[in-house]
Amino acid sequence: MGLLETYGHGGDLVTAAERFGVSAEAFLDYSANINPLGPPARVLEALGRSLTAVIRYPDPGHRAFKRALAARLRLPEDFLLPANGAAEAMALAVLALQPESAGVVTPCFSEYAQLSRQFGARVVECAGREENGFKPGERELYRLFRETQLVFIGSPNNPTGLLYEPDELLQMAEWTNETGTHLIVDEAFLDFAAREKQFTLADRLGHFPRVLLIRSMTKMFAIPGLRLGYAIGHPALIERMRSKQVSWSVNGLALLAGELCLQEADYEEETRRLIAAERRFLLDGLQSGLGWQVWPGEANFLLVRSPEWIDATALQEEMGKRGILIRNCAMYPGLTARDFRIAVRSRAENERLLSAFHDVMEKRGAVL
Amino acid sequence: MGLLETYGHGGDLVTAAERFGVSAEAFLDYSANINPLGPPARVLEALGRSLTAVIRYPDPGHRAFKRALAARLRLPEDFLLPANGAAEAMALAVLALQPESAGVVTPCFSEYAQLSRQFGARVVECAGREENGFKPGERELYRLFRETQLVFIGSPNNPTGLLYEPDELLQMAEWTNETGTHLIVDEAFLDFAAREKQFTLADRLGHFPRVLLIRSMTKMFAIPGLRLGYAIGHPALIERMRSKQVSWSVNGLALLAGELCLQEADYEEETRRLIAAERRFLLDGLQSGLGWQVWPGEANFLLVRSPEWIDATALQEEMGKRGILIRNCAMYPGLTARDFRIAVRSRAENERLLSAFHDVMEKRGAVL
Repeated sequence: MGLLETYGHGGDLVTAAERFGVSAEAFLDYSANINPLGPPARVLEALGRSLTAVIRYPDPGHRAFKRALAARLRLPEDFLLPANGAAEAMALAVLALQPESAGVVTPCFSEYAQLSRQFGARVVECAGREENGFKPGERELYRLFRETQLVFIGSPNNPTGLLYEPDELLQMAEWTNETGTHLIVDEAFLDFAAREKQFTLADRLGHFPRVLLIRSMTKMFAIPGLRLGYAIGHPALIERMRSKQVSWSVNGLALLAGELCLQEADYEEETRRLIAAERRFLLDGLQSGLGWQVWPGEANFLLVRSPEWIDATALQEEMGKRGILIRNCAMYPGLTARDFRIAVRSRAENERLLSAFHDVMEKRGAVL
Repeated sequence: MGLLETYGHGGDLVTAAERFGVSAEAFLDYSANINPLGPPARVLEALGRSLTAVIRYPDPGHRAFKRALAARLRLPEDFLLPANGAAEAMALAVLALQPESAGVVTPCFSEYAQLSRQFGARVVECAGREENGFKPGERELYRLFRETQLVFIGSPNNPTGLLYEPDELLQMAEWTNETGTHLIVDEAFLDFAAREKQFTLADRLGHFPRVLLIRSMTKMFAIPGLRLGYAIGHPALIERMRSKQVSWSVNGLALLAGELCLQEADYEEETRRLIAAERRFLLDGLQSGLGWQVWPGEANFLLVRSPEWIDATALQEEMGKRGILIRNCAMYPGLTARDFRIAVRSRAENERLLSAFHDVMEKRGAVL
């Protein structure tokens, strides 16, 4: 039996539906880290009214979306590149930079290594320290900047939820100037962190031309099916990436939705409140209620280690039969066969998740 | 004043709107070659009902769409690669093959040279013979296969409408086996040709592993805003291209629309009837009515040469003021400052187009 993550990611409801004989729509999906509120109502309504716009080509210059984004981020437009999902933004960076070697801190999003190899780079791994929330030691991290041409950092990191401190990110940015190595900070989940912890290098990229930030619109606004992300970087780097981008790469409905999502500040605030409260609820339910090990991250997901009587693959199978998908993390370099990731969702859903975990325990005859 | 084709293509309604102070939606667009019937009603309705599906990631394996496509084309699934528009399919081919040199027959779709250069190939041009509908001589074409590693052929070709004969395409396919050069046949507009002229190498790719066919779903089904195309090729070549494709590159609504469009055989037939009749109507109106030179192609567009008293740039400007966009072809290698392209649209629209051409003539005081 193959992996549920046959394409290397969570959220693959088609494979899950084939495996468990449940329709894709019926799953409670904890394997993809999407805002449980669903897309903003105003955005869905506007898309419904604008469907006939698909008869026109998307704006190849992404002008309206880029203008709105620049205003929202208070950055000049030439620091921005809209992309067909954060994944395309990362791929364009690798294509533009053509690094011979790329550095990653394990465990991390599999696309960093995948994309690097895809376009010819050798991947160098630096192991995060498990006892320190999988944060790497400073010396090992510095060595990664010395030994590779491009370093990927997730902040918050997927699947650990680890958020780097401002001084740590600034230190890495200084290293890019010192070593000539480029740094990609993947901020796909930064929106979900508490406002006061959302440190970003976005307004210093004029001084750090080798630092690129990658953002996603699909997680916060629950539109992964539409595909929309963007990169923030020095105009020279942005232009190198743009020159590798396929014409009309971002579809017209994604551009329209993106523009409207940027006006949803209240929805974003509500989401952050929900995620903060529910992350605590899940953490408590997993640690105190079940006695399982959890890494308390700053994003809308949690990395969990299953107890010794069941590994992540078996637990995923048990949960799948109960209509709930979790993300097996056994294949992440640096993690173990018992590690899995769950999204943070609404209270009723989280109760159902915890209740299903309890049910698996009982059925397996495990003692608390 | 910059080109209206500032991004290298027709259909850029955002630039046109800025230039002429007319809203993008208000233009009568003859600059993009999209089915004038608009998207099939059933497809738009289904998209409207399925908008909430954007909360889920697209299937990374494109399974349902690929299965439907394989059934429709009577080809095994491993010969097919869905893509984020035909443009991405071409880019993936260039990325996978990494040719040092690419051959094009001018005039042709600008992306062939653009994409080749984008990913490091030198471009070699072979001039089509104007007196022969811009078809290249056989010896020159053969030389292109001898001298480059990848040859692009449009059939029907854009912007000339030239359709290659079966024996010519088979000859080129034989040359790929003889020379080791790859051939991309861009069939983006093949759907619009008469059924009996729709020759394709699709069912012979087992024998021609270096031939790749590129198709578009966005022209026939009028959904360019959604982005959907695909490649047909030998499984080994398809797999090399897939390995370069970004995760979730094709968005979920495009995959859904694509699956439904494949069931619209009547709509396709009706479109072909309309295009055949209206192409004749426009050809007659331009040649006999206006006395302008037209190349009678087999696609849903026509290449036209303006009379000596006005060039394509000035004509485009005059038409733009009248709310009609035409495609200036002055920048195509192999064409002249007087060449432009128009789509084939419905009778009422075509009458409005011809009437606007007449009006420009009168205002300029030109004599018939």
